[in-house]
Amino acid sequence: MSGEVLNSDWLAERALRSPGALALCEGDRRLGYADLDRRVSEVARALCAAGVKPGARVAVGFGGLDFAVVAHAARRCGALLLPLNTRLSEREIATQLDDAETEQVLRDPGQLAALPPSDAAPPAPPDAGEPSTLIYTSGTTGAPKGALLSPRGFFASALASALHLGALPSDRWLACLPLFHVGGLSILWRSVLSGSAVVVQERFDPEQVDAALDRDGITCLSLTANMLARLLDARRDAPAPPTLRLLLLGGGPCPAPLVARAEAAGFPVAPTYGLTEAHSQVATRPPGAPPEVGATPLPGTALRIEAGEIWVRGPTLMNGYWRRPEASAAALRGGWLHTGDLGRLDEEGRLIVLDRRSDLIVSGGENVYPAEVEAALLAHPDVAEAGVAGVDDMEWGARPAAWVVLQPGADPDTESLRSHCRERLAGYKVPVAFHRASALPRTAAGKLQRHRLGEPDPAQR
Amino acid sequence: MSGEVLNSDWLAERALRSPGALALCEGDRRLGYADLDRRVSEVARALCAAGVKPGARVAVGFGGLDFAVVAHAARRCGALLLPLNTRLSEREIATQLDDAETEQVLRDPGQLAALPPSDAAPPAPPDAGEPSTLIYTSGTTGAPKGALLSPRGFFASALASALHLGALPSDRWLACLPLFHVGGLSILWRSVLSGSAVVVQERFDPEQVDAALDRDGITCLSLTANMLARLLDARRDAPAPPTLRLLLLGGGPCPAPLVARAEAAGFPVAPTYGLTEAHSQVATRPPGAPPEVGATPLPGTALRIEAGEIWVRGPTLMNGYWRRPEASAAALRGGWLHTGDLGRLDEEGRLIVLDRRSDLIVSGGENVYPAEVEAALLAHPDVAEAGVAGVDDMEWGARPAAWVVLQPGADPDTESLRSHCRERLAGYKVPVAFHRASALPRTAAGKLQRHRLGEPDPAQR
Repeated sequence: MSGEVLNSDWLAERALRSPGALALCEGDRRLGYADLDRRVSEVARALCAAGVKPGARVAVGFGGLDFAVVAHAARRCGALLLPLNTRLSEREIATQLDDAETEQVLRDPGQLAALPPSDAAPPAPPDAGEPSTLIYTSGTTGAPKGALLSPRGFFASALASALHLGALPSDRWLACLPLFHVGGLSILWRSVLSGSAVVVQERFDPEQVDAALDRDGITCLSLTANMLARLLDARRDAPAPPTLRLLLLGGGPCPAPLVARAEAAGFPVAPTYGLTEAHSQVATRPPGAPPEVGATPLPGTALRIEAGEIWVRGPTLMNGYWRRPEASAAALRGGWLHTGDLGRLDEEGRLIVLDRRSDLIVSGGENVYPAEVEAALLAHPDVAEAGVAGVDDMEWGARPAAWVVLQPGADPDTESLRSHCRERLAGYKVPVAFHRASALPRTAAGKLQRHRLGEPDPAQR
Repeated sequence: MSGEVLNSDWLAERALRSPGALALCEGDRRLGYADLDRRVSEVARALCAAGVKPGARVAVGFGGLDFAVVAHAARRCGALLLPLNTRLSEREIATQLDDAETEQVLRDPGQLAALPPSDAAPPAPPDAGEPSTLIYTSGTTGAPKGALLSPRGFFASALASALHLGALPSDRWLACLPLFHVGGLSILWRSVLSGSAVVVQERFDPEQVDAALDRDGITCLSLTANMLARLLDARRDAPAPPTLRLLLLGGGPCPAPLVARAEAAGFPVAPTYGLTEAHSQVATRPPGAPPEVGATPLPGTALRIEAGEIWVRGPTLMNGYWRRPEASAAALRGGWLHTGDLGRLDEEGRLIVLDRRSDLIVSGGENVYPAEVEAALLAHPDVAEAGVAGVDDMEWGARPAAWVVLQPGADPDTESLRSHCRERLAGYKVPVAFHRASALPRTAAGKLQRHRLGEPDPAQR
C-alpha cells in the first residue's frame, strides 16, 4: 500500500470506489458509501461552522450509526474524536472532558440534526499520522489517560487484520460491542478499508444478535467472553450459521472451555489479544487452529517478552498519551509498547497471554483498575485504607471486591459505601462486596499486595 | 503495511505464520507453506552452489508446481527469474536467452532433482524493490523486451488486489493459465500474501477445470475469454459452483455477450485490464457490477487518458525494460506507464478499454505483435513488403493474417511462407492467411496503415 493511499481521505476514496455498496446499517437505517460520505461532509462542514478547529476535541456520548458518522466527520475536519464510555458515571465523564479540555460535547444524536448546515469547506485534514482519536484508558496508577490514535494507525491495524484473517467486500461485520471502545471503533475502519458493511446494534442483546446472524447474513462478529456465553445460551448451542466466517473474541481473557463450547457449535472463534494503545488487535489465533496454539502476531507487529511482560512494536502503536509526556515515554520506551500484561511466546513465536496486568480486573470486557476504585473509596470520610481485587464471577468473568480499613470509631453501613462508589464510578466498577479488615496486606515497603487481599485477616491469624 | 514487511522474505514469513496451511497443489502433489519454504531453500542453496550469483538470469522452461518452487527459489538467491513461454519457437526462445545473457537454463523439472544438494546459505537477497523477474513482452516495434518486475511490485499488486476484490486465508485459486505470463505468476504472489492455496493445472483443459471447481472447492479462478467460452461449453452452462467467488477474466478483450452468458450461469465475473509492465491487474470491474460500468482502478493506482491513450501510475509499475534505457524512458516518461492502449474514463473515474494498442492482435489470451510477424515474413527471400493485421476468429477472438508484396518475379507457394513462419514464430503467431498484394496501404510518410490492410488492393481499385 503506498503512503499516498494511507494519507488520503479513505472514506472519500471508498465512496468513489464503491458508491453503492452498503456501509452501515442499524435497524431500518441503511447508508451506502456515497450516502455516508455525503452525510459525513455535511456534519464536518456544520462542525467547522460551529467553531470546531483542527485539533479541537469533540466528545461523543452516544453510539450507533450516528456515532460512526461523527467519527468520520471529526477526522474530516481535523478534530480529535473523544468517544465517551456511556457506562461511566457523570463524575468520571466530567473528569475526561476536563482533562481533554473538550470544546464540543455531543451527548445526543439530536444535536447533530440541530447543527446549522454550512457550505464552507473544512480545512485540509492533517497528516494521517497525526492523532484523530482520543480514547481514555486507565493505567495501573488508576489515573485515566487519553491514548492518542491516528488514521494511519487504524488503517495499519485494519490492513494487518485483513491480511491475517481475510477481508471481503461482501463481508458484514456485526458491531454489537460499544463503538466507544477500540474493539468496536476498529470495526468501522476495517469496513472502509475493504468496502464492506457494518451492522450496528448499539446495545448487546443476545436475542437480537442471534436474530441478526441469519437475517443479515453476518460474516464477522466481535464479542467479549461474557457476550459469547450469553449468545450460546440464547441459541441453546444451536449450530453456527454457515455465512459466519469469523468470531473475534477479545476484550479480556478467552476461557478455553468457552472457546471449546463455541467451536463445538461450529463458531469460527478467533481469540485475540489487543489494546487501546495498539489500535486493537495485537495477536490473534485464526479460526480452526488447535486450542494449544498461541495467538499469531498480526503481520508487521513484533512481540517480545521481557521479564514476563509483553512488549509490542509495529505500525499500530499509539502516538502516546494526551499531555502525559512522562507516561508516554514510559509506555513507549525504546519504541516498544510496554503492555504490563504477562505472557510467553511459543516456539513459533506465537503469544500465550498468561495474565493481564496482575492487578487488572476484566469484567465483561470492561477493564476495572483497582487503583481507581480504591481512590474512590478513600474519598469516603470513614475509609482509612482501601484495597480492591477481582473475584471470580460466573457471568462476567470477574468483578471487583473491596477490603477497607475504617477510620477509628467509624461504622458506616455497606449501603453507604456502595452508594458513595455509585456516584463516582461506572456500575461495573462498583465492588460486589465490601469487606472490613483491621489491616491490609502490604510489603515491607508498604506497597499494597492485592493478590493477598482474600487471605484471612491478619488480626485473626 | 510497513516497508519492513514489504522488504522481508515474504515466503519465510508466511511459512512461520501458516506452516500447515496448503500452499500449492497439483494433482496428487500437495505442499504446505512450511514444506514449500523448506523445498525452496533446498533449491535456492543448490542453485547458488551451481554458481548462480545475485542478479544472474535463471530461465525456466516448464510450468506447474515445480515452476512455483523455482520462482520462489530464484528470489531467495537474488537471481532474475526468466519464465519462458513454452509456446514460443526454439528460435524465439534462443533470442530471449541470448538477449538476457542467461546463465542457467532449466528446461525440465528433472534438472531440479539433479542439482547437487548444498548446505551453503544463499547470500542476503537484494532489496525488494530490485528486479527479481524478467518477462519478455513485445512492444509495437516487434522487438521483444524484458520487463523487469520486482517483489515489491508483485506484493503491491497482490495487496491492491486483496483490497479491491477481497482475499481470505481459505481461498483456493485455480491457476490454469500459464505461470510464465504475469496473469499466472501473480497468482503465486497473491496466495503467499493471504496464506491461501493455489491449485495448479499446467495445461488448460475445460474438463479438468470443471472437475476441479467442485472437487477442490475453488474460490477464485483466472481465465482468458477463450478459456471461459470453452469452460461454459464443457459445462453446458450449468450453474456455477457456490464456493466460487471470483472469476478474473483478462488477458485481452472481455466480450460483453460472453460475460453476460457466464453471469447468467451465476459465475462471478470480474473483467480486468492488466499489463506485464504493471505486474498484472490495473483496473478490474468487481463481480456483480452492472455491465455498463467501467473497471475500477486498483487502490493506489492512478489512471489518466492522454490523446486517447491509457496512462497508469502507482506502486505496481515495472522497473523498466532489461537493458533498453531508451524504451524504458519512453514507456515510463513522467512517471506514467504509457500503455499504448486506448480507453476512456467514465464520470466515476472507471476505465472503459476501447481498444488494445491499435495494431495488437490478442489471440486466445496471447499477444501477437504484427511488427514481429512482419519481421519474420521479411526474412523470406521472396517477400519485399509485409503487413499483418488481426482477423476475427470465433474460437480465439482474433488471429493474425498477412498481406505480402513479393519480390519481382518471385512466386512462392503459401506453404513455403507458412513453414518459414513456423520455424521462427510460436504457432499462434503464424498467419492464418497469406494475401498477395501489389502494394500495402501507407501514409504519405510511408507508414504502414495496418487497419486498412483488409481493403481492396489498390491495383484493383
